[in-house]
Amino acid sequence: DGDKDQVAAETEATFKDHRRIGLQQELYMINEHTPGSIFLLPHGTRIYNRLLLFIRAQMKQFRFDEVVSPIIYKRALWNTSGHWDKYKEEMFEVKGRSEADSEQYGLKPMNCPGHCLIYRHIDRSYRDLPIRYADFSPLHRNESTTTITGLTRVRRFHQDDGHIFCRVDQISVEIQQALKLIDEVYKVFDVPSYRLLLSTRPEQYIGSLEDWDRAESALREALDFSAHDWKLNEGDGAFYGPKIDILLKDQNGKEHQAATIQLDFQLPQRFDLKYRGEDDSTEHRPVMIHRAVFGSLERFLAILMEQTQGNWPLWISPRQVLVLPITDQHAAYAEKAQSILSGLPLGAPTRLLDSNAETFFVDVDDRSETLGKRMREGIQKGYTYLAVIGDKEVESGTISLKKAKGGKKSKQMTFTLEEARKFLEDEVAQYH
Amino acid sequence: DGDKDQVAAETEATFKDHRRIGLQQELYMINEHTPGSIFLLPHGTRIYNRLLLFIRAQMKQFRFDEVVSPIIYKRALWNTSGHWDKYKEEMFEVKGRSEADSEQYGLKPMNCPGHCLIYRHIDRSYRDLPIRYADFSPLHRNESTTTITGLTRVRRFHQDDGHIFCRVDQISVEIQQALKLIDEVYKVFDVPSYRLLLSTRPEQYIGSLEDWDRAESALREALDFSAHDWKLNEGDGAFYGPKIDILLKDQNGKEHQAATIQLDFQLPQRFDLKYRGEDDSTEHRPVMIHRAVFGSLERFLAILMEQTQGNWPLWISPRQVLVLPITDQHAAYAEKAQSILSGLPLGAPTRLLDSNAETFFVDVDDRSETLGKRMREGIQKGYTYLAVIGDKEVESGTISLKKAKGGKKSKQMTFTLEEARKFLEDEVAQYH
Ligand SMILES: [Zn+2]
Ligand SMILES: [Zn+2]
Repeated sequence: DGDKDQVAAETEATFKDHRRIGLQQELYMINEHTPGSIFLLPHGTRIYNRLLLFIRAQMKQFRFDEVVSPIIYKRALWNTSGHWDKYKEEMFEVKGRSEADSEQYGLKPMNCPGHCLIYRHIDRSYRDLPIRYADFSPLHRNESTTTITGLTRVRRFHQDDGHIFCRVDQISVEIQQALKLIDEVYKVFDVPSYRLLLSTRPEQYIGSLEDWDRAESALREALDFSAHDWKLNEGDGAFYGPKIDILLKDQNGKEHQAATIQLDFQLPQRFDLKYRGEDDSTEHRPVMIHRAVFGSLERFLAILMEQTQGNWPLWISPRQVLVLPITDQHAAYAEKAQSILSGLPLGAPTRLLDSNAETFFVDVDDRSETLGKRMREGIQKGYTYLAVIGDKEVESGTISLKKAKGGKKSKQMTFTLEEARKFLEDEVAQYH
Repeated sequence: DGDKDQVAAETEATFKDHRRIGLQQELYMINEHTPGSIFLLPHGTRIYNRLLLFIRAQMKQFRFDEVVSPIIYKRALWNTSGHWDKYKEEMFEVKGRSEADSEQYGLKPMNCPGHCLIYRHIDRSYRDLPIRYADFSPLHRNESTTTITGLTRVRRFHQDDGHIFCRVDQISVEIQQALKLIDEVYKVFDVPSYRLLLSTRPEQYIGSLEDWDRAESALREALDFSAHDWKLNEGDGAFYGPKIDILLKDQNGKEHQAATIQLDFQLPQRFDLKYRGEDDSTEHRPVMIHRAVFGSLERFLAILMEQTQGNWPLWISPRQVLVLPITDQHAAYAEKAQSILSGLPLGAPTRLLDSNAETFFVDVDDRSETLGKRMREGIQKGYTYLAVIGDKEVESGTISLKKAKGGKKSKQMTFTLEEARKFLEDEVAQYH
């Protein structure tokens, strides 16, 4: 145990930034062939997929419909949306490679124009609204190579993106729901605190004064309803609509923009989006709300990494249990424990797995290294639980789980294998 | 019921191709701004996500590690891989839009080179092999606009892509596992039959004769082990390795290439991939196996659409139950039924949903149209079960489920709401 304490002291002494944790736990890599595009390695992908699974479940109850939209669109679309000029050098251009192929495409920096095309695909009635689309497509922005770094300034990223098309009278409820979702999600991730800022109509604006007034009062109403402190940034909204900034403070006091809520009077106008009203006129214009909870998944991952310092809560941990047989004699039992705890059969699969089957990431380290070295490496890699297997365990058919980062006083719990599995399930169920 | 029978007769009379089903059930759309790139609409996305969830579960037990790899790579990478010249006009080129930004990128047509970079990222030992990566990234191929159509010839698509890096002595077991997975998956989707074809060394080839001989005999061994008929295509392999074609026959007798297994001696050489052997030499070269089970998810979706004719088995159905209150008086009970069957709370969510919570896609159609019209439209949209709610149901607290496409003789089953929910769970559990 001396080894373990030493490591604990070493690794807890200093704050580690996400790049260091990413390297230590092999979560992601970068490569000179594609600056700013992150390769999520197997363990990083596990966390990423867990975040997606979690947010997708919430999208079901918050009645967002996920869509999978294209990644390249002709220049004409970006002219309509205004991005071709506005985004200029931040947007990548795509072309066919034959002489004859003169079509210019843009690699999408955001999903909104694609979602406008989906909205416009069929006629919409006031009864269909609000229409809510979710999308987890990869987005590309040509940031300068001098500013790209780690997971926070990248060129390719993914958002838990959402667009709501609604009537002006629906804005308040939609924003209330968005604020509620953000609040609930941040609680799950133990975000210590966040600030809400309302930015209102600037001097230059599009849309009618009446719509702005109604939208702003809907936002105020929703903010008041949230029972969360908020502040006013008068006149600081975008020219195309008011917005709410959600500024998250991490456990080191650093502020990050993760979630956003942005109203938009412009895109519905540029794309000539309409709906048939109760008055039977088809000339009604919906409002568009852009919103994200995590924001950039890559950036949110970085925030989580720094906040947890790589000590992942069990439910999101990419390495949940490390089983350590003391000698070769304990290896067979260690594998049995791995199989029961993980929920995956030993050896070659004999049947297909149920899609919803709960499985755990359980590894065995049976290398011929000292137990101390294997424990130390397991702790450094970020395993949540360690389970040493010796004579006692084999003879009594038990397993002892101990939090890898629990420190000296962390209690060790002894279970049968089935009880241990149940214990893991229960701990995960407390989160998600 | 007269209405219903008429519709059944109309819709069953003729074979519908996937484009017609896609339109009728609003599964996907296309748009002139991005020819060949499919927009999966909400209901198409539900099927697509279900396929991903299903195959991801299998990847866990077949020990594939999912990664998320970048989408654009500098030209230099495609020179190394050979794609820049070989793929020429099939590959999209990507560039920054500022004058100063002269870097040429290629939009990836396949994941293999990216996976080679991940392999090469750290030193590998014979003990680490096989290394298996799964990836569901979007891929782009610049097919001519004259050939693109529906979901089968597209420019942007997704594969359930996998690459195995292994030693020559591991090929046979890896291929056996791949064939087993393909066979099990095809059973789940009721694929009536498929053919296996082994293509062997052509006149022009790279790699050593010894490696080819060992690889081919490993493939033969795996094919024999599969207990499935297979045929030899002598000399028809690619110059860089032998392959197994899996030709799936749909219920209309049409053959499709879905799954593939391709050995590759070339990319490991081009990327100078190595591993440290038992002899401690670092000069060993792994073999690479490209394999996919569904192949293109878009194409597999088209095959499923045509095979089922849009009558989705419950587990994959994007519209599982349609609840039809006869009059307004039955609307409140219909909503209660929707909530219990779907597993989603009525109205605004009050708590976060468990990520693994099983939910069902249950809609209520309470428009003031005749019951006949609503049933007909429900059948056309592809609902799996219809549940008409009248006085009897409200009074007895029951619900009757009837297969929408079961025809006249299909039995109607009456349950309490909780029993009905359990019935749906059980039916899904029979598949996945
Ligand atoms: Zn947006
Ligand atoms: Zn490949």
